[in-house]
Amino acid sequence: MDVVEYRPTRDQYVWTFGGAPPSHTIRPGTLLKLWTEDAFSGRLTSTTDRPSAVLDMTEVNPQTGPFFVEGAEPGDTLALHIVDLRPARDWGASTTIPFFGALSGTDRTALLHEPLPERTWIYELDRARNTVAFQAQSVDLRLELPCNPMLGTVGVAPAGREVRSSLVPDAFGGNMDTPEMKPGVTCYLGVNVEGALFSVGDGHYRQGEGESCGTAVEGAMDVTLLVELIKNTATPWPRIESDTHYTVVGSSRPLEDAWRISQVGMIDWLGQLYGFDRLDAYQLLTQVAESPLANVVDTNYSAVTKVAKSLLPTGSAYGGMHAHLREIGGSV
Amino acid sequence: MDVVEYRPTRDQYVWTFGGAPPSHTIRPGTLLKLWTEDAFSGRLTSTTDRPSAVLDMTEVNPQTGPFFVEGAEPGDTLALHIVDLRPARDWGASTTIPFFGALSGTDRTALLHEPLPERTWIYELDRARNTVAFQAQSVDLRLELPCNPMLGTVGVAPAGREVRSSLVPDAFGGNMDTPEMKPGVTCYLGVNVEGALFSVGDGHYRQGEGESCGTAVEGAMDVTLLVELIKNTATPWPRIESDTHYTVVGSSRPLEDAWRISQVGMIDWLGQLYGFDRLDAYQLLTQVAESPLANVVDTNYSAVTKVAKSLLPTGSAYGGMHAHLREIGGSV
Amino acid sequence: MDVVEYRPTRDQYVWTFGGAPPSHTIRPGTLLKLWTEDAFSGRLTSTTDRPSAVLDMTEVNPQTGPFFVEGAEPGDTLALHIVDLRPARDWGASTTIPFFGALSGTDRTALLHEPLPERTWIYELDRARNTVAFQAQSVDLRLELPCNPMLGTVGVAPAGREVRSSLVPDAFGGNMDTPEMKPGVTCYLGVNVEGALFSVGDGHYRQGEGESCGTAVEGAMDVTLLVELIKNTATPWPRIESDTHYTVVGSSRPLEDAWRISQVGMIDWLGQLYGFDRLDAYQLLTQVAESPLANVVDTNYSAVTKVAKSLLPTGSAYGGMHAHLREIGGSV
Amino acid sequence: MDVVEYRPTRDQYVWTFGGAPPSHTIRPGTLLKLWTEDAFSGRLTSTTDRPSAVLDMTEVNPQTGPFFVEGAEPGDTLALHIVDLRPARDWGASTTIPFFGALSGTDRTALLHEPLPERTWIYELDRARNTVAFQAQSVDLRLELPCNPMLGTVGVAPAGREVRSSLVPDAFGGNMDTPEMKPGVTCYLGVNVEGALFSVGDGHYRQGEGESCGTAVEGAMDVTLLVELIKNTATPWPRIESDTHYTVVGSSRPLEDAWRISQVGMIDWLGQLYGFDRLDAYQLLTQVAESPLANVVDTNYSAVTKVAKSLLPTGSAYGGMHAHLREIGGSV
Repeated sequence: MDVVEYRPTRDQYVWTFGGAPPSHTIRPGTLLKLWTEDAFSGRLTSTTDRPSAVLDMTEVNPQTGPFFVEGAEPGDTLALHIVDLRPARDWGASTTIPFFGALSGTDRTALLHEPLPERTWIYELDRARNTVAFQAQSVDLRLELPCNPMLGTVGVAPAGREVRSSLVPDAFGGNMDTPEMKPGVTCYLGVNVEGALFSVGDGHYRQGEGESCGTAVEGAMDVTLLVELIKNTATPWPRIESDTHYTVVGSSRPLEDAWRISQVGMIDWLGQLYGFDRLDAYQLLTQVAESPLANVVDTNYSAVTKVAKSLLPTGSAYGGMHAHLREIGGSV
Repeated sequence: MDVVEYRPTRDQYVWTFGGAPPSHTIRPGTLLKLWTEDAFSGRLTSTTDRPSAVLDMTEVNPQTGPFFVEGAEPGDTLALHIVDLRPARDWGASTTIPFFGALSGTDRTALLHEPLPERTWIYELDRARNTVAFQAQSVDLRLELPCNPMLGTVGVAPAGREVRSSLVPDAFGGNMDTPEMKPGVTCYLGVNVEGALFSVGDGHYRQGEGESCGTAVEGAMDVTLLVELIKNTATPWPRIESDTHYTVVGSSRPLEDAWRISQVGMIDWLGQLYGFDRLDAYQLLTQVAESPLANVVDTNYSAVTKVAKSLLPTGSAYGGMHAHLREIGGSV
Repeated sequence: MDVVEYRPTRDQYVWTFGGAPPSHTIRPGTLLKLWTEDAFSGRLTSTTDRPSAVLDMTEVNPQTGPFFVEGAEPGDTLALHIVDLRPARDWGASTTIPFFGALSGTDRTALLHEPLPERTWIYELDRARNTVAFQAQSVDLRLELPCNPMLGTVGVAPAGREVRSSLVPDAFGGNMDTPEMKPGVTCYLGVNVEGALFSVGDGHYRQGEGESCGTAVEGAMDVTLLVELIKNTATPWPRIESDTHYTVVGSSRPLEDAWRISQVGMIDWLGQLYGFDRLDAYQLLTQVAESPLANVVDTNYSAVTKVAKSLLPTGSAYGGMHAHLREIGGSV
Repeated sequence: MDVVEYRPTRDQYVWTFGGAPPSHTIRPGTLLKLWTEDAFSGRLTSTTDRPSAVLDMTEVNPQTGPFFVEGAEPGDTLALHIVDLRPARDWGASTTIPFFGALSGTDRTALLHEPLPERTWIYELDRARNTVAFQAQSVDLRLELPCNPMLGTVGVAPAGREVRSSLVPDAFGGNMDTPEMKPGVTCYLGVNVEGALFSVGDGHYRQGEGESCGTAVEGAMDVTLLVELIKNTATPWPRIESDTHYTVVGSSRPLEDAWRISQVGMIDWLGQLYGFDRLDAYQLLTQVAESPLANVVDTNYSAVTKVAKSLLPTGSAYGGMHAHLREIGGSV
């Protein structure tokens, strides 16, 4: 097995999907051992740091990559199996950024209000207990919350000659910010350009569904990935398979459209898996869908449609790719 | 304990929140044993039934009630504890109604498409196995799904002199269609008019999050409720408390606004429970919220914000009302 | 010709569409000479008045009526011809109401911001010059603007047994807040209940398209209306005909859906007028539509689709009703 | 005066904003005489052409340019004065493209409907009468409509290292599709990258507000532009100045957000012009805004806020740039 380790230096961070030369060329089957910096590019380290003072908004959400996958062509599907996510620091940070977040006026939801106050929270990690600690600032309250590492941003180069900010989620994946992107899952992304040119970043030690204020418990992450390629199989919107669920992620605005994309994507997936026509799949989905939101803060919102495998007949997606990668991942 | 049993006849069905005279006047503390007809008013009974032929769209979603609660006044909160929900028939029905549903053009999302085909599915109930069976029509596939009874519609008379269709969810509750409205929970609704005038209906034997096609596994239901009143405490949007979660439901369009309502509602609830200022509550919620959609099909969409009690300090909402009703309900 | 004059006293104001007994029963062909109080119920009279102090939000947007039209039945269309609108006071008022307005967080677009400041502007009317004067408060600037009287609110009782606040626009008309509702036009509204039960109110001496801050130059109005009935002709959403334009108003959220409703309504109207199929009408509309917004502040937003008659073949809507009423109105 | 003439060949078409090398480097003050191909890249020429058969969706909306403007740096504003737009062919074309258009399900508003039928209309141009002729296909009706040339797409390279499809409108301008972009206006665009790198394309011989079906009367265009640079002056969203109006264009989804952007942009512009604080500008705008929609079909919707200069005090935007360019343009 090819194994590639990569810890980018600051000058190697990438800020877009598409438009950056590959950091590495890899073969399908490669195991990647990566390090990703946090979404703040490591600039927010204390509760006294104010985003408007310390952040450079042209350098947020740094990506590790992109990786050129040999043989990947438009019309193929890239399979990224997350073997492991491990916090690379002993603390994570979250904050309120002026005119950013779901419960604030923004550059898009343009209003006349003053910005909400800036405040920064530092979450200490307890590796033994596997928790991160929320420390309230308005009352004397400290809460230990389970540490549930996930990747906010996983994507390939976009279609249509576009280059997109690493802050944007869309059909190419990107900054979807869904807690479903966790260890043990396989993410399927349609390939738009030769080599796929995927990258990852934006580790979260924990995040709620919707990512209300716009920043999770952001932290540098050690990421172990298995990369595979499925030839001649298109995937129009990002799909995630775990041992227990099939998941489709849609990203757009308004939020109902993001969700509709994920629903139609799941209807088509159910059709592929079981031969349903769309009306039967629509009906079944109506009764079995889980619909946890991902983010309601990014340039596109992301919504998720999940179905528990336990409710479905035995099926095999992408020729059993998830089980295959799971097995390899388990032995690494 | 006062116990009221009520099985409305067809001429006693109610189609609105507000605007109907009370079926009963009850005292706080009353136990209600109710029967609710299904959302189709019982007119859809076979896979050969077509909604456009058999449904009367002026008579859908019949309500049982309304109940006038003695002493309830604007500014109070009604607590409805769902002791039990039991399917009252051995089958449920679901269907696609022309120009209705999340993945269809509608009267609001007005487009130029022909309607999707009408199709009706009948789900047989197996009481021993506690399942309902999905029978595909495009392929030979039958799936047994867990029967998870819930109430689609729970509400009080609206504020502002309004009378609203029983198809609409809003601040008064109504047709929220959230799977969270299940046995064992307590629903808190702000009282807008003297007596509160609440009613219930729209039993679902099972529903996915979002209720994609617009109709769940609809079925008549035997409903056991405990009714209590919390004086001088306002509840701006519906809240639900279970043994494990605090939940707020928002209803509006676009979907992000429905969700924002539920988020701000939860931020204020967390503030009431633990003394957080809104910025601390916003931050904590960002890391702990669950955001399962309720419906993306009704005149207003409904979105849910939940927080697991296991992640929070011990708290007591509404003076411990849920625990109190849970205890009584357990002994009924 | 029947002539009815009516100046409601404060206790005769009506706050809803539907749910109120008729103030008068009239025959088709009646001329109404009405007075309408302003949307603030006359409570805002000085630049030192603050809405949060002087307004009673349960008593805003008072309606004059409702009028029971003899012979009007569901499936008919009511034609209201605005013969004249004349300011009934020498000043109008506008203001910023906390958590109301297009550029503010609201009860629906629920955010965490503090409310925008309250400020009240009084516009003096110059009848000779036919102007209202904007007086800035942050700089020494006074602007005379043309006085263009319009009615913010024109509607009938809703369908589906509903009673709706006079603040809401929907298929029944209501608080559409479109500058198209001006002297010389005929408004067509589908009848939902026996007698139609229409009312009018919310006079504006002037309003921009979108009504950004939520309140126009609000003023009491002397309203002269001609009322006619078109039997056995349905009108699903409000239409307005002037000497120069056909107009359809849609009301919903998000704003694109309000506009889609007005577009599909116009496509169907063009089909009725000229025999186009929907695809031809869609194409023609694409090239000739005017799309001025009405309001982006009310519970439903209202958007307008207009087509200039000068671009179309000679047509006759509703049997030439507008020309007929225009002629009668001209001789009153 | 520098004069540059440019008629790109097919291999010189550009499909993005950003990401393409400049076709020319020009100095501020240059007069450009350009030719732009139509949005279909000239592939739709007959009523029997079907978009799904003849269009290459990776090659639509070709741009002429981009032009590198000497001295233009981020933080400056580019002024593009449209001296003249002249149809370069004797006919224009419009069509319905599957799953595209405001009244159809799309890739974003993902639904389960079959696509609307494809149909193509050819509009013959009568230069003497200055009309384009709509020929209905479902009835025997031909309508001559005024020819009102405009540019659908005018933009600069985006900020944030992005490269965007020429089909997208955003803060950098792009495919705004507003009928306001007509001869005699000056368009102000904020510069995001060195040289600005602007391009133009997508000529329309006529378009309604909203561009309902997604394609206007599309036609090749002879474009005469004057280019100027305003140093050290930022313009966050596109502005247009004519002899009669100030206009701001916002682009986003949902449509209310596009419009909010244009409103806040106008409020800030009014503040710059007259010294109003934001509350006074909000109030004045509420009474004087015109809000004609631009497009409700592109990846972002575009909405417009206009104010008539006749309603405002005399003002001077960007140091009188529009009057200056108008004068030069008049003498070309």
